[in-house]
Amino acid sequence: MGDTRSYMTRAIDLARRAEGYTSPNPMVGCVIVKGGRIVGEGFHARPGSAHAEVAALREAGDEARGASAYVTLEPCNHTGRTGPCTQALIKAGVAHVVYAVADPNPLAAGGARRLREAGIRVESGLCEPEARELARFWLHRQETGLPFVIAKYAASLDGRIATKTGDSKWITSGAARLRAHDLRQAADVILVGAETVLKDDPSLTARPALPAGRKDASHPVRVILDSRGRVPVDAKVFRSTTPGKAMVISTGAMPMLKVKALENRGVEVIRLKPAANGRPALGDVLRVLSAKGFLSVMVEGGSAVLGAFFDEGLVDEVWAFIAPVIIGGGKPAINGTGGERIADAFRLEAPVTEHHDGTLLIRGRIARDRQEAACSQVS
Amino acid sequence: MGDTRSYMTRAIDLARRAEGYTSPNPMVGCVIVKGGRIVGEGFHARPGSAHAEVAALREAGDEARGASAYVTLEPCNHTGRTGPCTQALIKAGVAHVVYAVADPNPLAAGGARRLREAGIRVESGLCEPEARELARFWLHRQETGLPFVIAKYAASLDGRIATKTGDSKWITSGAARLRAHDLRQAADVILVGAETVLKDDPSLTARPALPAGRKDASHPVRVILDSRGRVPVDAKVFRSTTPGKAMVISTGAMPMLKVKALENRGVEVIRLKPAANGRPALGDVLRVLSAKGFLSVMVEGGSAVLGAFFDEGLVDEVWAFIAPVIIGGGKPAINGTGGERIADAFRLEAPVTEHHDGTLLIRGRIARDRQEAACSQVS
Repeated sequence: MGDTRSYMTRAIDLARRAEGYTSPNPMVGCVIVKGGRIVGEGFHARPGSAHAEVAALREAGDEARGASAYVTLEPCNHTGRTGPCTQALIKAGVAHVVYAVADPNPLAAGGARRLREAGIRVESGLCEPEARELARFWLHRQETGLPFVIAKYAASLDGRIATKTGDSKWITSGAARLRAHDLRQAADVILVGAETVLKDDPSLTARPALPAGRKDASHPVRVILDSRGRVPVDAKVFRSTTPGKAMVISTGAMPMLKVKALENRGVEVIRLKPAANGRPALGDVLRVLSAKGFLSVMVEGGSAVLGAFFDEGLVDEVWAFIAPVIIGGGKPAINGTGGERIADAFRLEAPVTEHHDGTLLIRGRIARDRQEAACSQVS
Repeated sequence: MGDTRSYMTRAIDLARRAEGYTSPNPMVGCVIVKGGRIVGEGFHARPGSAHAEVAALREAGDEARGASAYVTLEPCNHTGRTGPCTQALIKAGVAHVVYAVADPNPLAAGGARRLREAGIRVESGLCEPEARELARFWLHRQETGLPFVIAKYAASLDGRIATKTGDSKWITSGAARLRAHDLRQAADVILVGAETVLKDDPSLTARPALPAGRKDASHPVRVILDSRGRVPVDAKVFRSTTPGKAMVISTGAMPMLKVKALENRGVEVIRLKPAANGRPALGDVLRVLSAKGFLSVMVEGGSAVLGAFFDEGLVDEVWAFIAPVIIGGGKPAINGTGGERIADAFRLEAPVTEHHDGTLLIRGRIARDRQEAACSQVS
């Protein structure tokens, strides 16, 4: 007989099976427990498929009557592509519902209240930190309207991503580069500037082997910021043989001939109004991506693009791969303006340090973001 | 009854009690063991005082006859300010000598042979890595003729040591800054450029509380690189109330009036021939410091000075304090030219990661240096 934490941990593990597949929905997992025994398990696999609770109830069948349901997110109370989960739980005769995180979505909210009105005992907050981490992309978009932005870079100990000649292969270990692909797998969008494509001609795919039948769906969308249309149409990111979808965010400065040539290759071109610097405001870029249902954007560079995201205060999390080498000069990892005072710097909250065959990964949420999240959570 | 490793570890711990006090001599510790019991302990406390073996034999008295001696460094065979240790060990009737590291000094070498000729059983290599680490400053100078150079800096995760306005207080945690003072305590010299003094006006002392009677001796010498004499004579580093000694390394471009004013304050001024860039070659600077008996130089900045030490290939070890903050722009930690290829970068061998209240310390020897040391050790 497991304890309640172990049931919720199991629900979180189940939810994570669909990492990278659920947007614009959150990852959710559910476990149905009766007499100290798990009688049903489920998770939300992809948009349009059964919600976690419905999948778990289906597996539990008649055993659901009088059982406890452990869910990572407050059961929804609205009818979207599927019916409300509250109704399914009530209909199945569940006696007790425990959820980890409250749903801030005004459309879905009220789930707990609806369950209580139906006589179900409801508890919340179990494993909440872990469940908030699981659902952070989705929660962030619910709360701010923008996708969650992760700045990722691979630098030397002295903060350089390339030598003076531009050589950058490889600063970090193979194990570290593989770890970076875990993040690509989890993100909806990989975003880079035109400079990075011109210099490195990357394919920007998520390379780890994936379960059969999921390969295409798993690839994040590649977004290239190219205000003037400098990237050639035969770049690897645009090739039809490169799995997944590519998108260019540009301005009126991109020639229509180039727009057509890209569109003929299946690339979506979005032209936004430029700011004074000739480039679209990054807030506008994020709003466009949010409107398309993307919950998370991984910004991979180059240093000017990363600098601009920080300068505009739009970074929510940092993944810094740091190799124990000194280059001594060359290209800085993040090349924005930066604040005037050290007190203005972006502080990582509770950063995690991982070791990957000699390369360190230091990752964590930007602190002010965490504070916002903590505030918006008070109710 | 302890094992042989525990005796040598004890000898290393004893040696380390004199950290920062023994230059130009190495730290050495010695333990005399008889019948599984330690009968004498000693370490080299300061130049001119008894060598570790002699101190330990003195404590052991008659018990030394037939005993084993564990020494961190091969006993010396020459008469310097004190008599040869080999003679003292032979005279005391020691039966067995174990040392960790061979002495590469041509004057002192031959210690092991001399002991064997006297019928003493001699072994070597026990705890050698730890003992080499203990004596690394001294071994390096024996092998290269130059002091051991440690580059130390405190930067943000993106490799910046100050904002665009020059604000740098404080990027790292108080615990990290205290840890940096351990290194100042161990080093013979703290070296900075004129820019750092002009900007921060630091006192560059080793601040932790020290045993009474040792405070003055413990302070490393402050060396300021000031080719043109830009640092004002009333800078904190030059004040008579600042404990320890200051030295300026300059060129003929420093006005004689300034030289005299500094000398009147007790500051030693050394004028070297400038290279094409108007500054003395750093190799010349290190040779001057070596000639004065200094075994170690801690380079604390600024970024141009650190960059120059790397560009001239003169750095032996790195202590990088990295705070989990992103500044996003501003002053890079190391601002040299750097190599053309990533393969030219300086790689830390077996880097150690320490956590100091949120700030990481990543420290380690530069790999090529380690290779040199390994080669010169073959005999």
